[in-house]
Amino acid sequence: MKEYEDLGFVKIDHDRKERNGYPEVIYGEGKTPEQAAAIFKSLAERNDAVICTRAGERMASAVAELVPEAVYHKECRVITLRRNAGEPEGCVVVATGGTSDISVGEEAAVVLETFGSRVERLYDVGVAGLHRLLDNNGILQRANCVVAAAGMEGALPSVIGGLVKVPVIAVPTSVGYGTSFGGITALLAMLNSCAAGISVVNIDNGFGAAYQADMINKLAVRGAARNK
Amino acid sequence: MKEYEDLGFVKIDHDRKERNGYPEVIYGEGKTPEQAAAIFKSLAERNDAVICTRAGERMASAVAELVPEAVYHKECRVITLRRNAGEPEGCVVVATGGTSDISVGEEAAVVLETFGSRVERLYDVGVAGLHRLLDNNGILQRANCVVAAAGMEGALPSVIGGLVKVPVIAVPTSVGYGTSFGGITALLAMLNSCAAGISVVNIDNGFGAAYQADMINKLAVRGAARNK
Amino acid sequence: MKEYEDLGFVKIDHDRKERNGYPEVIYGEGKTPEQAAAIFKSLAERNDAVICTRAGERMASAVAELVPEAVYHKECRVITLRRNAGEPEGCVVVATGGTSDISVGEEAAVVLETFGSRVERLYDVGVAGLHRLLDNNGILQRANCVVAAAGMEGALPSVIGGLVKVPVIAVPTSVGYGTSFGGITALLAMLNSCAAGISVVNIDNGFGAAYQADMINKLAVRGAARNK
Amino acid sequence: MKEYEDLGFVKIDHDRKERNGYPEVIYGEGKTPEQAAAIFKSLAERNDAVICTRAGERMASAVAELVPEAVYHKECRVITLRRNAGEPEGCVVVATGGTSDISVGEEAAVVLETFGSRVERLYDVGVAGLHRLLDNNGILQRANCVVAAAGMEGALPSVIGGLVKVPVIAVPTSVGYGTSFGGITALLAMLNSCAAGISVVNIDNGFGAAYQADMINKLAVRGAARNK
Amino acid sequence: MKEYEDLGFVKIDHDRKERNGYPEVIYGEGKTPEQAAAIFKSLAERNDAVICTRAGERMASAVAELVPEAVYHKECRVITLRRNAGEPEGCVVVATGGTSDISVGEEAAVVLETFGSRVERLYDVGVAGLHRLLDNNGILQRANCVVAAAGMEGALPSVIGGLVKVPVIAVPTSVGYGTSFGGITALLAMLNSCAAGISVVNIDNGFGAAYQADMINKLAVRGAARNK
Amino acid sequence: MKEYEDLGFVKIDHDRKERNGYPEVIYGEGKTPEQAAAIFKSLAERNDAVICTRAGERMASAVAELVPEAVYHKECRVITLRRNAGEPEGCVVVATGGTSDISVGEEAAVVLETFGSRVERLYDVGVAGLHRLLDNNGILQRANCVVAAAGMEGALPSVIGGLVKVPVIAVPTSVGYGTSFGGITALLAMLNSCAAGISVVNIDNGFGAAYQADMINKLAVRGAARNK
Amino acid sequence: MKEYEDLGFVKIDHDRKERNGYPEVIYGEGKTPEQAAAIFKSLAERNDAVICTRAGERMASAVAELVPEAVYHKECRVITLRRNAGEPEGCVVVATGGTSDISVGEEAAVVLETFGSRVERLYDVGVAGLHRLLDNNGILQRANCVVAAAGMEGALPSVIGGLVKVPVIAVPTSVGYGTSFGGITALLAMLNSCAAGISVVNIDNGFGAAYQADMINKLAVRGAARNK
Amino acid sequence: MKEYEDLGFVKIDHDRKERNGYPEVIYGEGKTPEQAAAIFKSLAERNDAVICTRAGERMASAVAELVPEAVYHKECRVITLRRNAGEPEGCVVVATGGTSDISVGEEAAVVLETFGSRVERLYDVGVAGLHRLLDNNGILQRANCVVAAAGMEGALPSVIGGLVKVPVIAVPTSVGYGTSFGGITALLAMLNSCAAGISVVNIDNGFGAAYQADMINKLAVRGAARNK
Repeated sequence: MKEYEDLGFVKIDHDRKERNGYPEVIYGEGKTPEQAAAIFKSLAERNDAVICTRAGERMASAVAELVPEAVYHKECRVITLRRNAGEPEGCVVVATGGTSDISVGEEAAVVLETFGSRVERLYDVGVAGLHRLLDNNGILQRANCVVAAAGMEGALPSVIGGLVKVPVIAVPTSVGYGTSFGGITALLAMLNSCAAGISVVNIDNGFGAAYQADMINKLAVRGAARNK
Repeated sequence: MKEYEDLGFVKIDHDRKERNGYPEVIYGEGKTPEQAAAIFKSLAERNDAVICTRAGERMASAVAELVPEAVYHKECRVITLRRNAGEPEGCVVVATGGTSDISVGEEAAVVLETFGSRVERLYDVGVAGLHRLLDNNGILQRANCVVAAAGMEGALPSVIGGLVKVPVIAVPTSVGYGTSFGGITALLAMLNSCAAGISVVNIDNGFGAAYQADMINKLAVRGAARNK
Repeated sequence: MKEYEDLGFVKIDHDRKERNGYPEVIYGEGKTPEQAAAIFKSLAERNDAVICTRAGERMASAVAELVPEAVYHKECRVITLRRNAGEPEGCVVVATGGTSDISVGEEAAVVLETFGSRVERLYDVGVAGLHRLLDNNGILQRANCVVAAAGMEGALPSVIGGLVKVPVIAVPTSVGYGTSFGGITALLAMLNSCAAGISVVNIDNGFGAAYQADMINKLAVRGAARNK
Repeated sequence: MKEYEDLGFVKIDHDRKERNGYPEVIYGEGKTPEQAAAIFKSLAERNDAVICTRAGERMASAVAELVPEAVYHKECRVITLRRNAGEPEGCVVVATGGTSDISVGEEAAVVLETFGSRVERLYDVGVAGLHRLLDNNGILQRANCVVAAAGMEGALPSVIGGLVKVPVIAVPTSVGYGTSFGGITALLAMLNSCAAGISVVNIDNGFGAAYQADMINKLAVRGAARNK
Repeated sequence: MKEYEDLGFVKIDHDRKERNGYPEVIYGEGKTPEQAAAIFKSLAERNDAVICTRAGERMASAVAELVPEAVYHKECRVITLRRNAGEPEGCVVVATGGTSDISVGEEAAVVLETFGSRVERLYDVGVAGLHRLLDNNGILQRANCVVAAAGMEGALPSVIGGLVKVPVIAVPTSVGYGTSFGGITALLAMLNSCAAGISVVNIDNGFGAAYQADMINKLAVRGAARNK
Repeated sequence: MKEYEDLGFVKIDHDRKERNGYPEVIYGEGKTPEQAAAIFKSLAERNDAVICTRAGERMASAVAELVPEAVYHKECRVITLRRNAGEPEGCVVVATGGTSDISVGEEAAVVLETFGSRVERLYDVGVAGLHRLLDNNGILQRANCVVAAAGMEGALPSVIGGLVKVPVIAVPTSVGYGTSFGGITALLAMLNSCAAGISVVNIDNGFGAAYQADMINKLAVRGAARNK
Repeated sequence: MKEYEDLGFVKIDHDRKERNGYPEVIYGEGKTPEQAAAIFKSLAERNDAVICTRAGERMASAVAELVPEAVYHKECRVITLRRNAGEPEGCVVVATGGTSDISVGEEAAVVLETFGSRVERLYDVGVAGLHRLLDNNGILQRANCVVAAAGMEGALPSVIGGLVKVPVIAVPTSVGYGTSFGGITALLAMLNSCAAGISVVNIDNGFGAAYQADMINKLAVRGAARNK
Repeated sequence: MKEYEDLGFVKIDHDRKERNGYPEVIYGEGKTPEQAAAIFKSLAERNDAVICTRAGERMASAVAELVPEAVYHKECRVITLRRNAGEPEGCVVVATGGTSDISVGEEAAVVLETFGSRVERLYDVGVAGLHRLLDNNGILQRANCVVAAAGMEGALPSVIGGLVKVPVIAVPTSVGYGTSFGGITALLAMLNSCAAGISVVNIDNGFGAAYQADMINKLAVRGAARNK
């Protein structure tokens, strides 16, 4: 029987790990610190890895009170709990075009690490100075999957897509001004990439990219047997 | 040394297979039948799997003259060549919301089969009649990756994403009228899916979804060793 | 003769109940607390049910001073007056996709209850965890009308529309980020629903949905005789 | 057990009448005449009322060959079958702003009549000549529901909404030029109506409006007992 | 010889009255209080009617210090100077759809009065309660020009345009929420009015509407001789 | 009593001349040649000036059969009837930015002449070669109103607005390519003109501009007495 | 004295060469073949270099009849006349991302050559296969200015901008599908380039890019003395 | 060998001057004051001209602490360092339409002066008062390049483009309200200019325009030899 827990304001989907392979992740935006903390605690009682994204400092404090082991990653506003962690598996590269995209890159990296994937960070390797990316080609070639976050014209995934043999998950960021339209320009550019093997998630959605990248990395590491 | 062939109007990227794991694929739109045929022939001399998408019947004829083994898939306007094919590997499910999305679904399925992946088709399983999808849950659970194509409100990937443990590549289709805006509504819905594990490609880009799905399926089948 | 009261800054439409079956409802946004309170008082002198939506706390205080029986519903920012209420009639289900949509859902529920309809709340039943909705199918089947509020990809009304025999009024909410565009994506998805029997109101317009849902519920309860 | 018929290219949802109170309706766009005819025949074998919208003349011929009783309504491109029809029930007014909106109005009227509702047509009653509408107020007052179709600035539903006590389903039409944007302007105007009791469907979606209007009319005629 | 005064940050166009019939009007937005005051003073030395729009309270104080006769109209954020005023001429009606549009209506009314036109205000006469407008038809018929300001669906100018023989200048206001898009919906509706004789100015541009309405009113009062 | 004639598909508003000062004008788009001809004939029986815009050649023939005196202006697709015409009155300048805007300019000019206004044409005087406009300043100064039609960047009304003392009605045209977006760019530019005294009509709406310009010209010629 | 020739439908700006350094160039779109030919002839009588862009074959024939020396460049739809040509000067590189962008690239190249600039073509050097561009770095370094045309994600100018010391004029092309939006995505990407030294022209505006590139190339070749 | 310095959060591209002729410029937005100051210091150790744009006062203080010679230009929020400056070279005119565009104009002027170009400022010369621009034609004719910044309808570059023989770099500014859409209207107008020789940069991107204008000015001054 399908199971969920009804806290009144939320129906926590405890069946999710069984069904989807991952426990529910809390999206902090629009929740009160107290609501988030209550859900975090409920999940922490049943799972070894718990994540709350888009969390401000007050939410982090509320969680810490109920779940003291929880860690707050301030730069990317993520709260994590990670128990009984083994060795990180496989390899996912998280690349960003510029310095301002790092908070999105970190959201992806922290989520991947909490899920148990090994992460290599390649930050500030945008296309206006190609040598910074090409010099790190060796790292790119180790990845089972690449998460590429960029704002402005969003060309980084296209260039990476032309260099690797594995899926590239492109994350448009809201970095830029004027006609960057809060990330829409980067999003459109990524959807129209002339390189194949690229798919795209919502603007600033480092979490979503990490989630899919983790799935791919685990499939590569453990083989098809895993998700049966 | 990097290699490409310069036919004047095009620089064919023969280094691509080495670099990206797949040979160049011809995008037929905007090319003359003669141009497409010349590129197809050049690729066919060096590769066992050649694909030309967005190909009309005149382009298919021009290719057939130079490469008689080539096959034209009229419903999805794809020309393929497949030599020395082994058993199809792994499993990718290609699902569509409605009957009108099938041409996009077929573009994905044909590309996947040409690349050597096993494909399961689940057509016309849109969310207005959920039982048609839920009845086929067994097929969904066999997949290493799901390609989900839908137009109109584009809700299919969200529902599938809630049922499986593997990546879902969402393809918005241009099916609909009025405010479907030629697929933009479906695209936006998919980018904002409340289910995790979903990434998105350009409108009607069955090819792009298939390309990434094939990468994922192969990683699952062959493990991380493959792409090193 | 048509009647309205001219307070200088406003012409209160006292003929409205006669003409439209419902008294004027105050839209608080853009009015000063004093203006809203003056209109509320004037309506309270002539009607048993008075409503002011989009009301902040200062507006609630100003109304309370002039009409002490008025009740402030803080979560959805609605002020109501309800006198001589009988038993609630019929049944309208108010469903929301997520926790963050509840304020919109409550705006609808409170308006419906003030107008005299019986309301069943189904909150946090979004499509990423279908079992939470399907488990409550029995409640859905009791409704004469369903109000379905959702943000992000806005798929909830499509799925509900596939399960019921009665009108579904879809309310897109401004919940989401990036390409949710403050509710536009949910709105577009709802307008393009592949399920029939769905109509849509403006973003976050819980009031508007409730107003029409109440009309439908009353028609069902009292039959065609009522509005003649 | 849920039932559907699999014709390969389509899964016909025969469970739909049981579940939703209405049999599946065929959306002709994007289907071949042969596909539409096959589905029409299958539905005609199980139902007394069958509808195919967005049907060209070739599709009408294909249907006529398999189901000779089918009627083609050329002005609105709808094919209908209606057997064992009783007296039309209740009353729905279908109003249009101008002459050019009539094809959309007729799509709504024909669908309503096929479902068994009585229809009153009020065509070319746009707001630039208010007396044409006000003169017909008596007809408006007989309705259990009003379908109001208009293009250009789409003001008709607002004005009607100010005159009646029943739900108004607004249908934006693609009539206009320049900044009418194929109906988007009318759609936006309708979503922002200052009159309450109005909900909106997709551009040119006469069918969708009629479907919901029929539900409402039947609820009014038969009372709440009907949909249990 | 064409004349302008160069204050460094601005080139005041003193030739303007000669060339365009009206002195330069100061647009306060984006200017410092000191800049606005300096320009106001320079204009006040050469003209009997000076206007500064979009002026906050600090700007009003800065102007008052240099030009004590100046009057601040707080509700519409306009500063005016009016010397040697004769009897107001002709008649312009300024109508608004709702209470929230009054600030825009007042910007138009104050500008018209400063230029010397007689103004009749008709506020809160939106189309959802038509009788409030129709009752005032006598006032409408006195106008040489009508300024009609409305937000939301912006239908007021269409209805007025159907009632009068003179030009209607439509002003979309930013009143509304969700898909009102800060006045874009009202703007589009007004551009697509099915009534003839209507032209449109920018969102919330009460000043621009008043400027043109004053030109028209003066042409009507003084005849063609005036502007030669 | 208000009067209209009901031809079934249309309610001809014969009360309009009484109410609005001008008889109904036929908008040809979306009407059949036969419908247009029938309305034209009905209007010609009661009025001296009849106009049908957006009329193709087949519509012109259909009208000519019923009303032989009607004249077809092919360049701007307008059919006119003009009986008992006196001397043209006053002066309206119709200016266009380029050669491609002339069809819109002619629509305005022909409508103005049919209504009895004197027209001066100033074609191809766009801002890239200012001397072509400045050389004709004398003509501009004779106008009671200017209609300025331009595509591309739509700057003509701003420059003319800086030169004259009378209202400028700006008509954006759909001339241009790429980001001209079928006239939207010109429309937006005109709405944001830094010159005062400018109002705007829909894209390519030469008729609408002419209609309002005629009202203004007549007010100037005949004075305020006229429209009482 | 400023000079122009008035052919009725056009005012040919013969003063232009004196004022702007280049004679008027004919934009063929929206002109009849006869109009274009008449203007071409008039310009050919006074200038050594005449250009007509966006010219179909019929227009080319009409021009050839009046000016037999004129040459038609079919691939880019440009008609040119070039008399008394000296050696081409300086160097402009015209680069395109793909094969489908060549028609735009050719429009630029042909215009540059007609104006007397030396052109180097670098076609099909898009970012998905970087080595094709990097291999031609030597050619890039010879340029005084680069014209870079690309569709889809429009990343080419960014990458080139990172490699050269001279201005890059970016031309978005309408190549792509779905969310390429006819070149808007490429335009936005180019406006948001993270590389400096890039400016942008309208979609498919090879002519405009060539015009400015020619100015820059001539300034480089002849020095500042030239344009005084 | 390509060189960059890795500070962890940034990879400073010291190879840039060699490759692109200019050192890296710091974009202050989204960086902490400390990050910006660290990069500024590193660049100041290797270059004579260092620029940081979009810098608030706190960032200016942080830079001043590490590099005391740095100058803060508050009006345009730019920090500059300029050592061993020779005579300014050539001439670039920076023109603005209005007073509110000056901050953007100053960003361009300050960057140009830091790079060593001579600048002539022409502020508040918008098209509504043409004589202010025409009076300064002599200054315009001295330029090797013109930077033209304007908001609202953005017509200034078109008019300037019609007067000069050199490239015009158009900068749309975010000045305006309502449908100016934060500079989009000006941007679109500039992209569609009917004058040739104009290219466009991102909204408010004074820096980008100055960068390209400096390149052009230097090419004109030093001739083609320079950039080899």
